[in-house]
This record gives sequence, C-alpha cells and structure tokens, in this order.
Amino acid sequence: MNGWLCIAGLGPGDANLVTPEVTLALEAATDVVGYIPYVARIAPRAGLTLHPSDNRVEMDRARAALAMAAAGRRVVVVSSGDPGVFAMASAVFEALEGMPTWQQLDIRVLPGITAMLAAAASAGAPLGHDFCAINLSDNLKPASLIEARVRAAAGADFAMAFYNPRSASRPDTFGRILAVLREACGPGRLITFARAVSTPQEQIHTVTLAEATPEMADMRTVVLVGNAATRRVGRFVYTPRSAA
Amino acid sequence: MNGWLCIAGLGPGDANLVTPEVTLALEAATDVVGYIPYVARIAPRAGLTLHPSDNRVEMDRARAALAMAAAGRRVVVVSSGDPGVFAMASAVFEALEGMPTWQQLDIRVLPGITAMLAAAASAGAPLGHDFCAINLSDNLKPASLIEARVRAAAGADFAMAFYNPRSASRPDTFGRILAVLREACGPGRLITFARAVSTPQEQIHTVTLAEATPEMADMRTVVLVGNAATRRVGRFVYTPRSAA
Repeated sequence: MNGWLCIAGLGPGDANLVTPEVTLALEAATDVVGYIPYVARIAPRAGLTLHPSDNRVEMDRARAALAMAAAGRRVVVVSSGDPGVFAMASAVFEALEGMPTWQQLDIRVLPGITAMLAAAASAGAPLGHDFCAINLSDNLKPASLIEARVRAAAGADFAMAFYNPRSASRPDTFGRILAVLREACGPGRLITFARAVSTPQEQIHTVTLAEATPEMADMRTVVLVGNAATRRVGRFVYTPRSAA
Repeated sequence: MNGWLCIAGLGPGDANLVTPEVTLALEAATDVVGYIPYVARIAPRAGLTLHPSDNRVEMDRARAALAMAAAGRRVVVVSSGDPGVFAMASAVFEALEGMPTWQQLDIRVLPGITAMLAAAASAGAPLGHDFCAINLSDNLKPASLIEARVRAAAGADFAMAFYNPRSASRPDTFGRILAVLREACGPGRLITFARAVSTPQEQIHTVTLAEATPEMADMRTVVLVGNAATRRVGRFVYTPRSAA
C-alpha cells in the first residue's frame, strides 16, 4: 500500500501563486478531491480522476479522500488559499478521530497563500502589525462568539482579517459587525474590502468605517480592518511596525 | 524611467515554497535588497547586484531600495515568509511618507508563505479556527502591550501564533508570556514549537503548557498555541472547525 494524502492550498486564484510543492503533488496524484470551483482549477489529464463535490459536505469529502488513500491511491484534497485557514485540513484531521488505520497513512498538509495575505499585499501592508483572522460564518459557531471575538480584538488594538463576511443566508450579520467596529474603533478607522483577489476580477476598496456598508462585502470578499495606527500613503494602506 | 520595486516573500526556507510570481520577479530584477541571510538565498547571476544589509536597519534599507527604483533599477526587496507579516512591506510604506515622487513608483507587494502557516501545516492544523498573530519582539512596542494582547487573545479563545518569541537580548520575556498563558488557558493547553520550518533542520515539538519551557524557543522558532478545543489525533495536532 503506497497511497498518500496531501491537503494542498491552491492560493487565492492566480496560477503564479501556487507553490511548486503543490504543483509537484498534483503532478504525482491519481485523484483530486474538493469543492467544485476549486477542483475546476485543476487541468484534467490521463491518469487523474477529479472528484468535485458541493459545499458543506466537508466531512464526507474528507472520509472519501482518506478511504482512497488507504486503498493505495495518491490523493490531493484541494482548498483555496491555505488548507489550514478555514479550509479542509481540520476536516481531514477530524475524520481521523477513532480511525487508527487511517492515522498511519502518509498525510501531509501543503501550505498556500491565504486570501488575507494576498489581499493585504494588493492593498499595501494593512496587516503589518499584530492581527487576528476571524471567520464570520456562523455555520460552526454562534454569532455571539463572533461578536465577542471582534470586540476583544478591537479592544486590544489588533488589525483584523474577516473571512466569509457575508452570504445570502445571513445578510444581516456583517452589518451588525460593522456597527460593533464603529462603536469600538470609531468612524475614522480604515477598512479594506478585497474581492476576488489575484483574479482578473480583483477589486480593492479602502474606506473609513463611517463610509463602510454591508453591501461592500460578499462571499468572494476578504475584509481587512486596520488598527489605530493604520494609515494611507499615496495609493496604499499600511499599518506601521510600531504600536500606535 | 522604467524602474520598479517589488517587496517579495521568499517563504520559510524551502525553494519549493517560493511562488512562481516571486521567482519571475527575481529573474527580471537588477537589484536584490534585504537582510543578509535572506539575500543569501538568491543565486548570483550576471546583471544582478545583491545588496545584503544587517538586521535593524529596515528604514535605511527601504529608502535605499526606493532610491534605486526611482533611478530606473528593477529592485526586489526580499523578506523571509510573507513581506506583509512582521517584515519589510510596512517599512517600505513608512519610507514613502512625505516622498510624493516615490509614491508614484511602480511598487508591488508579492505575498509569500508566512512561517506560522508552514509551521501549522507541518504540525497538522492548529490554526484551523479563529487565530491571532503576535510579534513578541519588544523592539517596536512595550512589553505591557504584548502581554495585554496575549491576555485578550486567550480570553476570547483565539488560537495564537507568536513570531520572534525569544532572543539573546530579552531572554526573560517569553517565560513571562508562558506564565500568562498558563494562568489564562490552564496547564493542559497544547503549544507547538516549530523551529526552522521547511528546512533540513526542521523540528516540530508539541507539548502542554505545563511542560513548556522558555528554552524550547529561539529566534528561528514560531510558537503556536491552540484554543480550548485543540487536540491531538495520531501524530498530528489540530483545532476543530467548530467552536469548543
């Protein structure tokens, strides 16, 4: 049995942001598993089977990938961005619980360029000092905990990156978060909306919290909030290395 | 004048973790600027001038790079990891303040694999839920602010990544942070020491806070602290996607 499993990050979209490590794993794979739009980024070739699946079936997908590796296949589970940041790596490790045979498999996580860092690079350097990454989706945690974390991060003057800020199923959550931020950080704090980063549709839009509206974000947007020292210089936004 | 400036992330060490975007920029460059050990990672070639400089001269380095780009050179400022995470991007933007001509230059930030994400990938997925990144160096902020941020992050049950945990000039700071963590998170919380990630010297060591000692970290170490739900499965450590 020479199967293996890699959980690989494809980066935010641009092929030039895929690491050589990930490219080599994909070239050696027999099977690629993942959410439909991420598997669609893999070029078909002879000897490679693509297994696209829908959103919100992460545990089924993880178990199917592990079963294939256990059967001797060379499997890459693909995530957008980095697989360890609000993506498939944790789901695969959850699927190992109580499965001692699967725990012996050759399993590796291959890091990728996560959306917040590509977004920060396009905007300048808004995450240039201590920062937090928070998933605003309430699929897997209560909205009250999300709000408490945003308040704690603002209180300690962290810069922040928000993943999954807004979806059709919870259109009001992000408006509430913006209200919390305005109260905690004041109306002048800078906030950057980065949509479809590194793709031809990329849009980077920096405004003050007073100007920010929920409609500026959707599920393809990463939102970056500066700390008290974050400022503009020319067309860029950056957070100084020194505390405010 | 066709000069440009890229601030590029070389990733944590492995050449297979350098993005093609960064490799292309280095191939097009006339000058590479950076801290001595990072510039040492760039292969010399005809037409390329290497400008290694010492630590703690970030502003001088940024201004020298901008001056070369303004003079028509094609300049890459190299950082380890990601240039926007405790690295050179913020220093370059600080150097643009009050310099309107430099602000018009072709300046781009090229993201890289930052150390905490490579470390998390080697350990499993300890940053698989909301997390903070904190620079423990007190060069640019007071030790009291660092401690306040660690307390805030622990109180809101963020996982944490610490950069620059310990140096010869401040051997006691990290011991104090460990004491704060033990008080706030309890002795059973998992902590991962990841040294020289992605290099042949890589060492990944996960213990409980009760077992952790300051000597487990040095300046080549990234430290990852789990949240209340972080657990081991087989040889891996991961944070479940759901809140504890």
